[in-house]
Amino acid sequence: MIPRYSRKEMVDIWEPATKFKIWYEIEAHACDAMAKLGVIPQENADAVWKAKDVEFDVARIDEIEAVTKHDVIAFLTHLAEHVGSDEARFVHQGMTSSDVLDTCLNVQLVRASDILIKDLENLLAALKKRALEHKDTVRVGRSHGIHAEPTTMGLTFARFYAEMDRNLARLKSVREEIGTGAISGAIGTFANVDPRVEEHVCEQLGLTPEPISTQVIPRDRHAMFFAVLGVIASSMENIVIEIRHMQRTEVLEGAEFFSMGQKGSSAMPHKKNPILTENLTGLARLVRMTVVPAMENVALWHERDISHSSVERTIAPDATITLNFALNRLTGVIDKMLIFPQNMLDNMNKFPGLVMSQRVLLALTQAGVSREDAYSMVQRNALKVWEHRVDFQEELLADEEVVAALGVDGIKEKFDMEYHTKHVDTIFKRVFG
Amino acid sequence: MIPRYSRKEMVDIWEPATKFKIWYEIEAHACDAMAKLGVIPQENADAVWKAKDVEFDVARIDEIEAVTKHDVIAFLTHLAEHVGSDEARFVHQGMTSSDVLDTCLNVQLVRASDILIKDLENLLAALKKRALEHKDTVRVGRSHGIHAEPTTMGLTFARFYAEMDRNLARLKSVREEIGTGAISGAIGTFANVDPRVEEHVCEQLGLTPEPISTQVIPRDRHAMFFAVLGVIASSMENIVIEIRHMQRTEVLEGAEFFSMGQKGSSAMPHKKNPILTENLTGLARLVRMTVVPAMENVALWHERDISHSSVERTIAPDATITLNFALNRLTGVIDKMLIFPQNMLDNMNKFPGLVMSQRVLLALTQAGVSREDAYSMVQRNALKVWEHRVDFQEELLADEEVVAALGVDGIKEKFDMEYHTKHVDTIFKRVFG
Amino acid sequence: MIPRYSRKEMVDIWEPATKFKIWYEIEAHACDAMAKLGVIPQENADAVWKAKDVEFDVARIDEIEAVTKHDVIAFLTHLAEHVGSDEARFVHQGMTSSDVLDTCLNVQLVRASDILIKDLENLLAALKKRALEHKDTVRVGRSHGIHAEPTTMGLTFARFYAEMDRNLARLKSVREEIGTGAISGAIGTFANVDPRVEEHVCEQLGLTPEPISTQVIPRDRHAMFFAVLGVIASSMENIVIEIRHMQRTEVLEGAEFFSMGQKGSSAMPHKKNPILTENLTGLARLVRMTVVPAMENVALWHERDISHSSVERTIAPDATITLNFALNRLTGVIDKMLIFPQNMLDNMNKFPGLVMSQRVLLALTQAGVSREDAYSMVQRNALKVWEHRVDFQEELLADEEVVAALGVDGIKEKFDMEYHTKHVDTIFKRVFG
Amino acid sequence: MIPRYSRKEMVDIWEPATKFKIWYEIEAHACDAMAKLGVIPQENADAVWKAKDVEFDVARIDEIEAVTKHDVIAFLTHLAEHVGSDEARFVHQGMTSSDVLDTCLNVQLVRASDILIKDLENLLAALKKRALEHKDTVRVGRSHGIHAEPTTMGLTFARFYAEMDRNLARLKSVREEIGTGAISGAIGTFANVDPRVEEHVCEQLGLTPEPISTQVIPRDRHAMFFAVLGVIASSMENIVIEIRHMQRTEVLEGAEFFSMGQKGSSAMPHKKNPILTENLTGLARLVRMTVVPAMENVALWHERDISHSSVERTIAPDATITLNFALNRLTGVIDKMLIFPQNMLDNMNKFPGLVMSQRVLLALTQAGVSREDAYSMVQRNALKVWEHRVDFQEELLADEEVVAALGVDGIKEKFDMEYHTKHVDTIFKRVFG
Repeated sequence: MIPRYSRKEMVDIWEPATKFKIWYEIEAHACDAMAKLGVIPQENADAVWKAKDVEFDVARIDEIEAVTKHDVIAFLTHLAEHVGSDEARFVHQGMTSSDVLDTCLNVQLVRASDILIKDLENLLAALKKRALEHKDTVRVGRSHGIHAEPTTMGLTFARFYAEMDRNLARLKSVREEIGTGAISGAIGTFANVDPRVEEHVCEQLGLTPEPISTQVIPRDRHAMFFAVLGVIASSMENIVIEIRHMQRTEVLEGAEFFSMGQKGSSAMPHKKNPILTENLTGLARLVRMTVVPAMENVALWHERDISHSSVERTIAPDATITLNFALNRLTGVIDKMLIFPQNMLDNMNKFPGLVMSQRVLLALTQAGVSREDAYSMVQRNALKVWEHRVDFQEELLADEEVVAALGVDGIKEKFDMEYHTKHVDTIFKRVFG
Repeated sequence: MIPRYSRKEMVDIWEPATKFKIWYEIEAHACDAMAKLGVIPQENADAVWKAKDVEFDVARIDEIEAVTKHDVIAFLTHLAEHVGSDEARFVHQGMTSSDVLDTCLNVQLVRASDILIKDLENLLAALKKRALEHKDTVRVGRSHGIHAEPTTMGLTFARFYAEMDRNLARLKSVREEIGTGAISGAIGTFANVDPRVEEHVCEQLGLTPEPISTQVIPRDRHAMFFAVLGVIASSMENIVIEIRHMQRTEVLEGAEFFSMGQKGSSAMPHKKNPILTENLTGLARLVRMTVVPAMENVALWHERDISHSSVERTIAPDATITLNFALNRLTGVIDKMLIFPQNMLDNMNKFPGLVMSQRVLLALTQAGVSREDAYSMVQRNALKVWEHRVDFQEELLADEEVVAALGVDGIKEKFDMEYHTKHVDTIFKRVFG
Repeated sequence: MIPRYSRKEMVDIWEPATKFKIWYEIEAHACDAMAKLGVIPQENADAVWKAKDVEFDVARIDEIEAVTKHDVIAFLTHLAEHVGSDEARFVHQGMTSSDVLDTCLNVQLVRASDILIKDLENLLAALKKRALEHKDTVRVGRSHGIHAEPTTMGLTFARFYAEMDRNLARLKSVREEIGTGAISGAIGTFANVDPRVEEHVCEQLGLTPEPISTQVIPRDRHAMFFAVLGVIASSMENIVIEIRHMQRTEVLEGAEFFSMGQKGSSAMPHKKNPILTENLTGLARLVRMTVVPAMENVALWHERDISHSSVERTIAPDATITLNFALNRLTGVIDKMLIFPQNMLDNMNKFPGLVMSQRVLLALTQAGVSREDAYSMVQRNALKVWEHRVDFQEELLADEEVVAALGVDGIKEKFDMEYHTKHVDTIFKRVFG
Repeated sequence: MIPRYSRKEMVDIWEPATKFKIWYEIEAHACDAMAKLGVIPQENADAVWKAKDVEFDVARIDEIEAVTKHDVIAFLTHLAEHVGSDEARFVHQGMTSSDVLDTCLNVQLVRASDILIKDLENLLAALKKRALEHKDTVRVGRSHGIHAEPTTMGLTFARFYAEMDRNLARLKSVREEIGTGAISGAIGTFANVDPRVEEHVCEQLGLTPEPISTQVIPRDRHAMFFAVLGVIASSMENIVIEIRHMQRTEVLEGAEFFSMGQKGSSAMPHKKNPILTENLTGLARLVRMTVVPAMENVALWHERDISHSSVERTIAPDATITLNFALNRLTGVIDKMLIFPQNMLDNMNKFPGLVMSQRVLLALTQAGVSREDAYSMVQRNALKVWEHRVDFQEELLADEEVVAALGVDGIKEKFDMEYHTKHVDTIFKRVFG
């Protein structure tokens, strides 16, 4: 995660100050529960809340950690400086560092999910807007990079919408999966801390108690979380590859936003580079690369080892910050991207009428011409278009055999674009309801 | 996928014969729908069903493909040999090869999911059985490979159960995601095939119509599918690493099944190697390696390119066959694995009573001893246990200061194992309901 | 690895029959060495060579393995059926299965390397041929998919040559790395087998003795091997992406081979799909996916565990067979690919002369015009080309200020294509020597 | 890359100030070459060196970039503030940003390699020291985590040495591969910049001219670089897994350093966790995860796109900083790790003498006992050891049949440890020369 590809809102989640605040809340709520259970005096639980509005001093905690060599103890020591040594003496009782660290991590991942959910919703809004706007903007569909049959630009945006909408559902689902907390003490047996403490803390933090933890929360949850981010990143790559293709000099059916005649533009007006979408192609790789280590993290030794920790310290901020930045950048690109409908028509008509050749072939066979003959009739005219860029319809109209089979009107009718767009409404209804 | 790591049931899904059968059903149902819509004659649709019980001749289809260089055309040609050339002439009308290929792939992935779901259910049953059996079998919990505090073997099985139960939910969810079909024609516009054909075919095959396809079904679905398999494989690795650790010569708390005194066993009775779980460790990597290419497959050029195809031809059989084999092997290992409760106690008592040191420390502070003094009192006795392997409880009972603080009974009570197992029922209830 | 993407030569390396032959050679050479050392009788060593020309019966060995549950023992049993039980009784003495298995694997990987080296050499020959052929074929260079400045098609082939030549060097280097053998007995201490046996066997098989093995050969060697295959696959992807771009309908500067007017071609003459290079894009992913598991294989427990084995049984054949197939396919594509020089010129002149705008800008500043003025002079003319597709040179010649600064000849000279190709020879000399 | 896992020396390489310094050197050397070629005036080239000792003001450059939206232009503008606008006007002439960026990146990667080479050399020194120290420290070798036959701790260190020595060779080799520079102008044709400029700049910076570049340096070089880092990380994981196993409570043959009786140690003296090596296990994953994106970076569109850039901005610092930190940590761990030879003996004798069972079996057959009988003789005695932990040698000495076959001395001789260590010198010679 580097500043260039970061947004404050997500970066804040991973700041030490945020982490300490969450640790504080976990400890304070745990004290409440313990007091209620009669395990610690109520007044000590109450005292902890004195620090409610404290901004914890990160530098001071670091200073203590330099001595104690233990981050949670350093924090607790600092907390005692605010609450009073004596009042704070029951804080963390029966708990382990992992109770605090793992529950905190999941709070952070849930918050990160909430931001990413909002990001996806914004992206969906932009995609929907552009889809509706260009619902009927005809362009040629391409398979293998080669012209196939007509489609519309709206359908392109609509399929990106549908794909990202699935990603939204996946993200919401994995947000639930990752939204667990554990306050189960050493080895997760609750020997020193009552399960009701866990229940209370989780409820207060909007989490579900982890049904069975082993000091740590099981890492299959985190693996699933990063896997979903990896799928979202891959879908993002799918979208930006389309835009990069659209912006190629020879294609130029769309482009990242620029003001065409703007003062101060480059001396080479054709040199508008799709650098944002190229950048997003790279960012997709960065998010995706976190999936395998997250999966490698699942197998811990016995009840826990700490091999997962250095990985998560890195990939949890990196993947969420990068994806947050990327989704916002992508939304901006979609929202403002330039669409060139005339170029779409020009491209489609590079070989005039040729995209209709399959339909003519089908019509000929339906009109009773044998498959072989039909094929030959189409081919001899299509080749002229391919070689001399003449108009396919005109060639057909000048071909007596074809006219005999389909009639003049029959031929003309085959070049009706609405044939290809007649189900756009159906598809839009499926996608947007 | 190699025979050594394959099971017939899953291999069959990926056999050419199965594929052709599914292709046939797609085409036949599509004809039915087209006939109902009046697009093709009913009799031609009916005729296709003549081949209902045909076992398609894979060698013959290969022979035709060698000429046509196109697998779907080769199949259709062969189908016509059964149905009659004339009767078959409307088969596949308005459709593309992708309609057949992609819908078929998803049928296969759904069937593979169903097998894997059953596999997970069997594994869960085995884990539950062993969990209940060893619910109260005490062993030492280990963090960082080092003795921490007591737990039970049942909790170990229970946490594997909970983890695999989450995987079952994930698999069921992704089975729904992958369970779509598309009969949308070239570029996915339905220009040449009515959307109701797609609806009918999907209904007959137990699929959902893909809301928007572009000749191909979007590959984020497949990426998600393989990601879930990758998580399941990682959880499997988590389980087998535990077993491999249990079987180490020095630990020997459990082992893959063998009959201890069996005739014909090796001359080295200690040399019982956990080769099945080591093998499963490797198989987990093989399943996991399919996740990234599945994600790289998502970004296709424009409406489709075929870069994903060679990847899927390989990873779809490989990942499902390997995981099917692995889950079955794992279930067998769990079901029959040997558990050595006495060794568990012996290991825990390697430093007699030392696992209780934290509890004693806590008790001393609760009894009003200052943290520093409590620490020193525990430490001086613990060190003797560590160095001379004497009994911790006896040392404490011989330490006047400790006795003064906790009393003789107070000390003895701290060595009550039930302190650590008192919430096992609670946890089991959470996991098994 | 599936038949569709396999070539016999490489598949043969991974056949059971090949494996058994190598096992045989290892055992026979080991007997020779042991006899020479006086550890076993010379006549027993000699007897083993009776089986020199035997084609081992794979089915029979499988049959024995079904009983013994051990592949090496099954082989040795079968060997004794050929050599005679008594004569064969010293075969494998003091050795472990790993001595045979690991040494055999490396022999196979060396042979696979030799084939891949030949494949790369063939590819290099094809690239060189096309580079020389199109050394001076001018096309526009593109950054970000956008026209930049002129280059030549020969330079494109030359850079692929240079990249693959680096890969050849890497492959040769890693062939040496993987070319080790180990006959070091249990735990690799040579307690039961003299190091000179290892030396002899390795010498006979063209291997280097592994300096220190632990029953197994260290797996960092294999990790490096698969990493190099992954880099080669990625370079292959680099080449095929270029071809796929060249074949796009709008670009059409090159294409996978087809005979343009061939009988029996599709009715859509524009629909020549780059399916081979798309296929190769997918195959690159399949090779690359083996890199991470090969790296995960490096960390074994103590002197050895067998977690790497199932991984290697799969990825060793898969990666080498797939890459062998892919490199051959790629060589065919390069060798026969169609190049369309006229389309290259047409594309470059889509905005006539505009690719020279940077050079004109530079010339103006060198002629003493201020950067700002020069910029403005270029821009006002460039925009006309961009908007109305007029000729840039003509616009400049009609611009009095530009003429004043550069003169008519000075302007014309800037459109000399040789300016851009003047160092092609230098670069070719660097690449091809 | 996070501060917790970073060392200043490597972090400095990736600081903006370092980058600007390298940019400056590239530009200044290029001016020198251009002046010598008569392309720009000598005095302008000389003027650039006025800034030789300038610490560039990163904040100021950022400020300019905020306006120009281009990092290289911002730098050049700032440079002109030091050199004088007029004097600086030929700086960067005919060059592109990529000339500066790509050459700079490779300078940084070469410097990073030099640090990592030094790191590996330090690690090798530590491994060698410990290998020599424990050359004859006997411990049991383990396959599958199960006791096999005796080996020595020195051999363990020696094999790590040999593995890391191979990594050193790989790193030195890839340092050469990555040590290229390119000053080839737009699209890499040298149209606007003479190849001799590239040669001069590279010579001054200790680089080799890239034989053929396309504005960018080909990314197969970088892919190879990260692949080698991935292999090194995997070897590191191999070492730390061994240490983690050694430190397990039940094994305790070695441990990360701690002072056994140190004041202030935990109340649980057995609870010395191998947290450094667990941490290194995670760091290995972080380095390894950069390999696949580096390979995905190889395939750029045409002469260049910028999709690789965001990836490299992240993984180049991250992988090198993490590996630098990790290797230093590992060297410290090796250097100071505690070895417990007595525990090694105790573990080996857990089943007294049983590790010699294979040798006895071999001796019996060599003494003429049939394989079956020998097996049975060993087994009946071995089982007693396994079940009752009696001494294997004593059992054999009490077994008349065994005594008849081997004699009393013959039996005793089989328990001579030197049998297993007799080739340690040979192996050490192979490894250390």
